[in-house]
Amino acid sequence: MWMTKFDEATRAVRVDENTYDVLLDPGYSIGGPLNGGYLMAVLLRAVVDASPHEHPVTTSAQFLRVAAPGPAQVRLEQLKEGRTAAMTRATLIQGGVSFIETLVTTATLNDVAPDWSDGPSAAMPPIEQCLRLPAPDPESGMTLNAQMELAFDPPTIGWLDGNPSGRPETRAHFRLAEPQDPDPYVLAMAVDVLPPVVFSAGARGWAPTVDLTWHLRALPAPGWLTLLGSGRMIGDGWFDEDVEVWDSAGRLVAQSRQLARVGRG
Amino acid sequence: MWMTKFDEATRAVRVDENTYDVLLDPGYSIGGPLNGGYLMAVLLRAVVDASPHEHPVTTSAQFLRVAAPGPAQVRLEQLKEGRTAAMTRATLIQGGVSFIETLVTTATLNDVAPDWSDGPSAAMPPIEQCLRLPAPDPESGMTLNAQMELAFDPPTIGWLDGNPSGRPETRAHFRLAEPQDPDPYVLAMAVDVLPPVVFSAGARGWAPTVDLTWHLRALPAPGWLTLLGSGRMIGDGWFDEDVEVWDSAGRLVAQSRQLARVGRG
Repeated sequence: MWMTKFDEATRAVRVDENTYDVLLDPGYSIGGPLNGGYLMAVLLRAVVDASPHEHPVTTSAQFLRVAAPGPAQVRLEQLKEGRTAAMTRATLIQGGVSFIETLVTTATLNDVAPDWSDGPSAAMPPIEQCLRLPAPDPESGMTLNAQMELAFDPPTIGWLDGNPSGRPETRAHFRLAEPQDPDPYVLAMAVDVLPPVVFSAGARGWAPTVDLTWHLRALPAPGWLTLLGSGRMIGDGWFDEDVEVWDSAGRLVAQSRQLARVGRG
Repeated sequence: MWMTKFDEATRAVRVDENTYDVLLDPGYSIGGPLNGGYLMAVLLRAVVDASPHEHPVTTSAQFLRVAAPGPAQVRLEQLKEGRTAAMTRATLIQGGVSFIETLVTTATLNDVAPDWSDGPSAAMPPIEQCLRLPAPDPESGMTLNAQMELAFDPPTIGWLDGNPSGRPETRAHFRLAEPQDPDPYVLAMAVDVLPPVVFSAGARGWAPTVDLTWHLRALPAPGWLTLLGSGRMIGDGWFDEDVEVWDSAGRLVAQSRQLARVGRG
């Protein structure tokens, strides 16, 4: 079976009913730590494989420790299996230690039009008016950048040139660098690939996620995704980051919110 | 020690390091099922009691089964204890079965002004221009209503008279019926006390929460709270509900998002 690089990097191999082997790929590093969205995608591969349902509809992840590339395991505990939805606890384990704890609800989404949908929370300029980030210094260990294309709404990366917009916001068009249609696992990563929204409010440095919850709202159409990131409050060392993901057909396909620590960089 | 009714109803009594006895109070019923926010408050009493930190900063809860009034237990597993934050898995158990699974991060918040804050997502009329719900039919089992006062922004309960606003939204001023200043446990309940936002988009019936994640952003000032509920998409039997909680000093004190099933009522 032919697999994309992303499929391969997120592969979970069943060991027994509740254990999957995974190989965390050094290509998804954000300068040492692996991207949290990538790690959620890995966990969700195992959860869905073991579920009677097809899609990871809600995922709440708590980030305990920074995972490193290399072999790891996903351990599952089935909490409830219902007709509409199943609930699973899934833990990412390296060297016997828990790195990420998640609660996941799987269900099978149908390809139906929404009964009601709000529009995007912000307007995006077309891709040709958006800005790419310069390639990272190879010494930085920012290997994630090579896996994806991000085209940013210019004011939201004004911080790169010393002109932060003054409010927490990051907006970008996104797709994987290799040809691959988005799916729920790509969405799991997409909700965590933007530079932290606090950068455009003037903060800097490693902003560790404490809790990230995201909901899969629909299966994405092929093509670019639009990521709209924003926050409502920064204070006492904490900030929230909401990301809406819209697909090329103009549908809301994912929603996330994380609570994270403001960096001291 | 003098306790309020709410303190008493959410009391968690330590049995051993990882087990607390609780008594789920019939006064927090929404017509049979107990209110999910009330149950989170009960769980959080145990988590915080066992934590070196003072406040439940993030809570992700997965609702597996409908809990009934009566004796129950909270079982804790300490996942990580850090200098800034501690992470705990907490489960509500009745008759040996798990009803709610949570991942909680505790930390100690400081009483400092935010570095940056957006304003409320919607304007609220003053309390005297808001509407109270009629007292529920005593046969309905809606005992929760007697524990609190809600004064609604009129258009958001137009559905009561057959005039839904056509979009998912519920907004209200809130306080407990007994004299009690809001605290993090009151906030845990407050994020789940509004009628489901889908009612004002025309839906009806029991709308079970699947996942509810909320973040405590600051300690609330005494007085009324303002609850701003909204959703972004309803489709395929699922809807999201966001609640912002603002205190009487105009500060954002809590944020929640739940994914729930649309009722078939």
